[in-house]
Amino acid sequence: MENKTMRTAVVGYGNVGSYAVQAVLSAPDMELAGIVSSRDLALPELAGIRVSKNIEDLGQVDAALLCIPTREVKERALFFLQKGISTVDSFDIHGDIYELKLSLDRAAKEGRARAILSAGWDPGTDSIVRTLLEACAPRGITYTNFGPGMSMGHSVAVRAIKGVANAISMTLPTGAGVHRRMVYVQLAPGAQLKEVSEAIKADPYFIKDETHVMAVENIGDYMDVSHGVLMERNGGSGATANQRFSFTMGINNPALTSQVMVCAARAAQRQEYGAYTLIEIPPIDLLSGNREEIIRRLV
Amino acid sequence: MENKTMRTAVVGYGNVGSYAVQAVLSAPDMELAGIVSSRDLALPELAGIRVSKNIEDLGQVDAALLCIPTREVKERALFFLQKGISTVDSFDIHGDIYELKLSLDRAAKEGRARAILSAGWDPGTDSIVRTLLEACAPRGITYTNFGPGMSMGHSVAVRAIKGVANAISMTLPTGAGVHRRMVYVQLAPGAQLKEVSEAIKADPYFIKDETHVMAVENIGDYMDVSHGVLMERNGGSGATANQRFSFTMGINNPALTSQVMVCAARAAQRQEYGAYTLIEIPPIDLLSGNREEIIRRLV
Repeated sequence: MENKTMRTAVVGYGNVGSYAVQAVLSAPDMELAGIVSSRDLALPELAGIRVSKNIEDLGQVDAALLCIPTREVKERALFFLQKGISTVDSFDIHGDIYELKLSLDRAAKEGRARAILSAGWDPGTDSIVRTLLEACAPRGITYTNFGPGMSMGHSVAVRAIKGVANAISMTLPTGAGVHRRMVYVQLAPGAQLKEVSEAIKADPYFIKDETHVMAVENIGDYMDVSHGVLMERNGGSGATANQRFSFTMGINNPALTSQVMVCAARAAQRQEYGAYTLIEIPPIDLLSGNREEIIRRLV
Repeated sequence: MENKTMRTAVVGYGNVGSYAVQAVLSAPDMELAGIVSSRDLALPELAGIRVSKNIEDLGQVDAALLCIPTREVKERALFFLQKGISTVDSFDIHGDIYELKLSLDRAAKEGRARAILSAGWDPGTDSIVRTLLEACAPRGITYTNFGPGMSMGHSVAVRAIKGVANAISMTLPTGAGVHRRMVYVQLAPGAQLKEVSEAIKADPYFIKDETHVMAVENIGDYMDVSHGVLMERNGGSGATANQRFSFTMGINNPALTSQVMVCAARAAQRQEYGAYTLIEIPPIDLLSGNREEIIRRLV
């Protein structure tokens, strides 16, 4: 048993945050400093865990896991980094990751802290696999196929459409990185499926994809956090073609996301001050335990 | 096109060495300094490539790829490191890797160079996948299933048995990291399959495994460098069970080994002086090209 020397706070107590509490409590080298939430969390499962609106109330904190919506990550990460608290997020807007890294890098260096950004499974561990496959076969194409699993962004977009009481949008892979959207809608009283369906298919989130819309009685019966990915690369090593690689997983989405965030928080403590994506960190730094033992066991 | 600024030498011109020459020539950031070989390599495919018994004859060399038998790695790596030439090897005796690392680390620091050891696919890129899967699901078991593919060590053991003119031993996975040996033997004149088969099955290399021995007319018809792996892990993230992961590849063995060695040589230049296994290096360092572009494309 290692010393639980690293004090980690969970910021936000939604889907990912509740799993993050479990992941911190399971980590042999971490102590849960508490939860930062603006909500009043009088929940039985949180008995004995400190909850506050302000991280200052949690005592000394080494790292904060930002289990909050992607669009709030930058502002809150900058706030913590300036206080010298390292941050981990699972920011998932692929096109904006590099700009976020630049901002967090400056703040982390000024605050003498580290930020690990986009540390979920995609972006995150999938990014490591993509990097590894490109090293193994520099010429070729990697296809990342998601699902079946619920897309939070697409689900939120459907819920904003008139006539929709509640909805989930599932992502289904159809191969070669192309996806189909299966949308399950609980209609509002008086709403017609045909009209709702047309509105969904015309939405910018769906207009480019094959989309099917189905009415269901009770959306709660369809809610599930299963997800998965299949990454495939056929490519060339040196002058040799036909090298074939495949990585697949079937997972509880928030459980994996929060576990990767916990590992990233551990790795953060082992880096120089600054901001990093997961592909910029030695994989061994993600693991707890003695490094000699890890090398002997896993290499 | 990047500048071909990194001068890389290939040491040894056997199976892996010949593929390593192709991999160095394919690397956008490398120049082939030449080949170090004790043999006289007057081969048409090597026209224009410098070949020498001594690395000094190849001019300035940044890194040497040691495409030599595992048991010769330590001595030759120490020789190059003391000269300030970084080394990459694919040393594959899992139980001895950590001790080799300690030796090479001292020499590399003294020589102001870097050594990347065990940088093939297993140990090597598979080690990175094992580390990643353990980060994703800290509780669980990873099974590494090899093959179908030829095992060089087992083939050499069979060839030493009386009555064997030539042979190859194939490794076949039977699941959960257990393997079957399929041995194809070209018998020496007058030798009996039954006696040869019994001798093989009693050999320390085979005595613990299910082994089948078959006589064939011409072993050359069975020679092939295809290989593969299937790694599987079912495990728990935080308090959540049933997280499922699988990594598989079907590859030309020496082509992949040498490509990984080329990537490791590139990564070597980006580390502090010392010795490293692949899990101790940021994956991004394995790739050529602009780091901002890599992060934007792969994260």
